[in-house]
Amino acid sequence: MSEIKLNSDERIDEIAGSEIKIIQSREVFSFGIDAVLLARFPRLPKRGQIIDMCAGNGAVGLFASGRTQANIVEIELQERLANMTERSVKLNDLTDQVTVINDNLNNALNYLHPSSTDLIFCNPPYFKVDKSSHINGNYHYTLARHELMTNLDEIFEMSKKLLKSNGRLAMVHRPERFLEVVDKMRENNLQPKRIQFVYPKVDQPANILLIEAIKDGKIGGEVFLPPLIVHKLDGTYTDEVKQIYFDE
Amino acid sequence: MSEIKLNSDERIDEIAGSEIKIIQSREVFSFGIDAVLLARFPRLPKRGQIIDMCAGNGAVGLFASGRTQANIVEIELQERLANMTERSVKLNDLTDQVTVINDNLNNALNYLHPSSTDLIFCNPPYFKVDKSSHINGNYHYTLARHELMTNLDEIFEMSKKLLKSNGRLAMVHRPERFLEVVDKMRENNLQPKRIQFVYPKVDQPANILLIEAIKDGKIGGEVFLPPLIVHKLDGTYTDEVKQIYFDE
Repeated sequence: MSEIKLNSDERIDEIAGSEIKIIQSREVFSFGIDAVLLARFPRLPKRGQIIDMCAGNGAVGLFASGRTQANIVEIELQERLANMTERSVKLNDLTDQVTVINDNLNNALNYLHPSSTDLIFCNPPYFKVDKSSHINGNYHYTLARHELMTNLDEIFEMSKKLLKSNGRLAMVHRPERFLEVVDKMRENNLQPKRIQFVYPKVDQPANILLIEAIKDGKIGGEVFLPPLIVHKLDGTYTDEVKQIYFDE
Repeated sequence: MSEIKLNSDERIDEIAGSEIKIIQSREVFSFGIDAVLLARFPRLPKRGQIIDMCAGNGAVGLFASGRTQANIVEIELQERLANMTERSVKLNDLTDQVTVINDNLNNALNYLHPSSTDLIFCNPPYFKVDKSSHINGNYHYTLARHELMTNLDEIFEMSKKLLKSNGRLAMVHRPERFLEVVDKMRENNLQPKRIQFVYPKVDQPANILLIEAIKDGKIGGEVFLPPLIVHKLDGTYTDEVKQIYFDE
């Protein structure tokens, strides 16, 4: 591991509930609770291929690597973030299992076969492009948060192409875009099946949506899983979140 | 109140959290927690007109009567249930405020003006018609539970006609039909806005869906309200449900 170099702004963290080390930088990108919750949301295939779309610094795919023998492909547009992921892969000695593609999602078929994938993770930019999208100074965060370089249509169209029939897409998004998410999924033969809302506290509206869709899945019978509540009313973590973060 | 006669199978209950008395019958119809949760779900208009569609024995409309000056119209197809509601209205001395229409929902415009209504409640039959729909012996329960005499299309088409622009429809349904509900609402210009899932326990999937739509409402920005959890893990009611049932 002696060849891993860190930039001055970078640090090495451990991914919650795993022994995976990950290179982070407050100036560029650090993964959040969304990524942790997304990573533990779907059942993982034992073998085959998993893609982490909009991978950022690779947290979701790296986290999954410890729990499956499947090949994991991280796709990230931003060169700086893809490079951090590359180094995290080496740091964890995962070069046989985890591959990094540094390109626009729309070019994924230059690297991957159609209908080749068992599971796709996606933690996409949450916000539509509007006047404020260009205001925030940090270019890396702006691209990660706003739909400047990709959007739901492109993500679902590419997911449909990459997934096997009955393959699954697991996404984290914002509840206020729920109807748009389910509409656009279904336009691409991705049938929403498992949905979980995450609430900051038991008395507050949901602020995170976890949703899993099946390519070519049957219509109807969607399940709304038990609520995931992050904090107790006193502000400390709930037992469930403590378990996700510290015990798994 | 001396003129109110009860059939031998009937009893008088109090509606949870109110001083309203209601005639029930185990043989014909008794309202459930769905009705209680629906009744307290939307904000009530102070005046104007409220409709309780698929009213059963009138529980939702009767419950609302104590909290608004609006006129309340109960629409129920089944003669026996409409008659129970009529007598409950008299029992509570509410004949000036609450009217009962005993007819098919599709004939509502024979009694009511289009675009006249501020709020519609609907606790509809939950189950699609299939082979089992006709099996259960009790005719009254079968009609209340299965879409034999009405369905989501008819309910939303009539709601669209009866509601004022920006009027609201508050519905209780089953989570596994959520996508069908939101699709058919939107086909009728009813935009889902407030959604709440009810969970039997904190570690179980949702089993009741509460949803409020606004006629001609703007697209997007739907809110998923705090989870409503009915029982603690030890099986007793949560404080929130106790408050709904006993304190309001």
